[in-house]
Amino acid sequence: MSGCPFHFSRRGFLSALGIAAAAGGAGLGAGIGATAVADAVSGGHGKAEPFYAAQQGAAHQGGIATPPQSHTYFAAFDLVTDKRDDVIALLKKWTESSARMAKGMPADAIAPENAADTHDSGDALGLPPSRLTINIGFGPTFFVKDGKDRYGLASRRPEALVDMPAFSGDQLVPEHTGGDMSVQACADDPQVAFHAVRQLARLADYTAQIRWTQAGFASSPPDGGTPRNLMGFKDGTVNPARPDYDKVVWAGREAPDWMQGGTYLVARRIRIALEHWDKMKVPFQEQVFGRQKLSGAPLGGKKEFDIADFNATDADGNSVIAENSHMRLAAAVNNDGAQILRRAYSYNNGVNVTAERWPPWREGMEYDAGLLFLCYQRDPRTGFIKIFDKMSKFDIMNQFVTHVGGGLFALPRGARQGEFIGQGLFV
Amino acid sequence: MSGCPFHFSRRGFLSALGIAAAAGGAGLGAGIGATAVADAVSGGHGKAEPFYAAQQGAAHQGGIATPPQSHTYFAAFDLVTDKRDDVIALLKKWTESSARMAKGMPADAIAPENAADTHDSGDALGLPPSRLTINIGFGPTFFVKDGKDRYGLASRRPEALVDMPAFSGDQLVPEHTGGDMSVQACADDPQVAFHAVRQLARLADYTAQIRWTQAGFASSPPDGGTPRNLMGFKDGTVNPARPDYDKVVWAGREAPDWMQGGTYLVARRIRIALEHWDKMKVPFQEQVFGRQKLSGAPLGGKKEFDIADFNATDADGNSVIAENSHMRLAAAVNNDGAQILRRAYSYNNGVNVTAERWPPWREGMEYDAGLLFLCYQRDPRTGFIKIFDKMSKFDIMNQFVTHVGGGLFALPRGARQGEFIGQGLFV
Repeated sequence: MSGCPFHFSRRGFLSALGIAAAAGGAGLGAGIGATAVADAVSGGHGKAEPFYAAQQGAAHQGGIATPPQSHTYFAAFDLVTDKRDDVIALLKKWTESSARMAKGMPADAIAPENAADTHDSGDALGLPPSRLTINIGFGPTFFVKDGKDRYGLASRRPEALVDMPAFSGDQLVPEHTGGDMSVQACADDPQVAFHAVRQLARLADYTAQIRWTQAGFASSPPDGGTPRNLMGFKDGTVNPARPDYDKVVWAGREAPDWMQGGTYLVARRIRIALEHWDKMKVPFQEQVFGRQKLSGAPLGGKKEFDIADFNATDADGNSVIAENSHMRLAAAVNNDGAQILRRAYSYNNGVNVTAERWPPWREGMEYDAGLLFLCYQRDPRTGFIKIFDKMSKFDIMNQFVTHVGGGLFALPRGARQGEFIGQGLFV
Repeated sequence: MSGCPFHFSRRGFLSALGIAAAAGGAGLGAGIGATAVADAVSGGHGKAEPFYAAQQGAAHQGGIATPPQSHTYFAAFDLVTDKRDDVIALLKKWTESSARMAKGMPADAIAPENAADTHDSGDALGLPPSRLTINIGFGPTFFVKDGKDRYGLASRRPEALVDMPAFSGDQLVPEHTGGDMSVQACADDPQVAFHAVRQLARLADYTAQIRWTQAGFASSPPDGGTPRNLMGFKDGTVNPARPDYDKVVWAGREAPDWMQGGTYLVARRIRIALEHWDKMKVPFQEQVFGRQKLSGAPLGGKKEFDIADFNATDADGNSVIAENSHMRLAAAVNNDGAQILRRAYSYNNGVNVTAERWPPWREGMEYDAGLLFLCYQRDPRTGFIKIFDKMSKFDIMNQFVTHVGGGLFALPRGARQGEFIGQGLFV
């Protein structure tokens, strides 16, 4: 096969393998030239992200430090086996299939080559790799569930993988919370992201099953600026600088071997009362965020990336950035330097019947939409938990947002070619 | 303002109006150059579709004959007013706001210019028009609801806007079915599509409220080929040719004045048992569709657009394209020439607890995903209803698909500049 392996379409790959001809006799080959050309001009959308970590240097999973893709599909799985070997086999299958799909290949060969009972579902055939990344994590219940050490791994549970404390205002729905394992696919195409998770779920049959899922989207302006969330504000302006990732994002020597280079993911499905929010005047919305709506600048500042002046006061002596504003409470300087890498997506699950909790009270069909908040950190105790404990009590934004689900997962370091994700846990 | 009005970003527009400076003092102007350049290279994604129909020739709404965008957000609304003038005012607001948003502008000015209680939510600021189209339709209950002629329009109900018959196998959920009005936004960006519907819902406050919504996606291969649905098959291979739209899609002289140039939309939310489907071997799947999975060719044919030979038999005398295959039952030649314009999207609402209806039976978390089937036709009685009545009884695909919601709506002809959608109903 010619050309860069990180830049070809699924269709091209299939044709190259002769699969198309075998499974129906269709003349797919005729389309390859056009596809290759289209790929070449489609810019970032068509490209592939590497799945395996480089042989040298730190090994990380994808979709964390990767520049954010425009779509995600997140799934939490529960293991339904008691056999350690089943888990190992699952991780091997997931690793190999993920690596294939990241290149734009099907998860496994399509019949008739494939004698297995099932095969890639085919809905991503012809679509480019779309910068697909897949990362895999372990929840606390992976190690011990209902007091049971199913896989002889209880002693391997990292200290940092704590049982998530209950926060003020939490309304977590058990069916949408937790999970033994996490799988997150990110891609510049929603069909590619869902396809990837669906293949892993299929390959997990009788070993693991989906507990909950959430699709998300985040549209970046064409000038590469910060995307806006559904509240209409820029989301992600303040994130750790890349040189600080070793300090803030990646687990270090304090962690077990298999976690060094890994990270801890906190996921929270945050429903936003958009109908209420839309009734608020812009100056009030800006007080809630502590930022200007249009520019994203901190109040009192002029540009998005201006440093916030938390000491500034107005003529009446009130803080320019309110004491209970979201941004003030979240800022590292107000949290002993605590930082997390945020990589959030908006979600939209349609509408359902909800009672509003803000006047004018109304009960009716309201958006089940908001933020799929995803953050990555070296240790959740000094990251999300530390920061959010305070925010859950004082953030004025809490009038508009409700945490309805989520989970905490340990994402081991990335696999190098020949390894599988989480391999270090089983040696 | 310089440049083509159908090719600028929301951010550019805001800056041009000086709104950014007024609402926070941010120097947004600095970004315009980069945005314009990015727009210019982003190809189709950044472009605008016209909202108003041309002054000459037939007037159609957008998003029907428009080349399909990659995302949709569909919403059905119920009117909560008894006043005819409220409905007129709503249609005027929706028309004007839709026209603005199609150009990449906010639905209405953002504070402080806007003295109204509410304003554009801002989540699409900085995003290009993304080929946004918005169309608006009227359901049967718009004309008569619970026996009541709320707006003096009962006599204007088109004959073709029938009460949808119950079909074999229907499991329509009332809360996700019907509606007095429909709004469909399509765009090459999910955030732009949802933003558009959300603005119309906000502007409808106290006049209409959302009944149900559904987001959808359809990813086309970069070579422009037919997109695949979640069953992994190409979806939309056979559609009426453009010269036939006047015969098949657009309402003609048989329709009331205000509907001539309009069309009837049948929406069906079709849940697919993906977990089951994924256990089926490719040859069986191909029998279900009557087409090859990879190429999309009709069975017995070689290429996607080959004409199906429904008379072909195999060595045993069986039909090559099975009698109960989806494609045979849907084909115009087997339905007295009946045709519809299909413009379907995949949907994915996560997972919920479902009992499988195909062995090996299992109850558990399964995808609430499938097809948001949308078709447009000159008359549903000779279009969808005629075709689907037979398919609902005999299509072997029914083992895997369940219709769980939908509606029928009359989409009036498009508005010309200075008109509002549906204006002809009120004269």
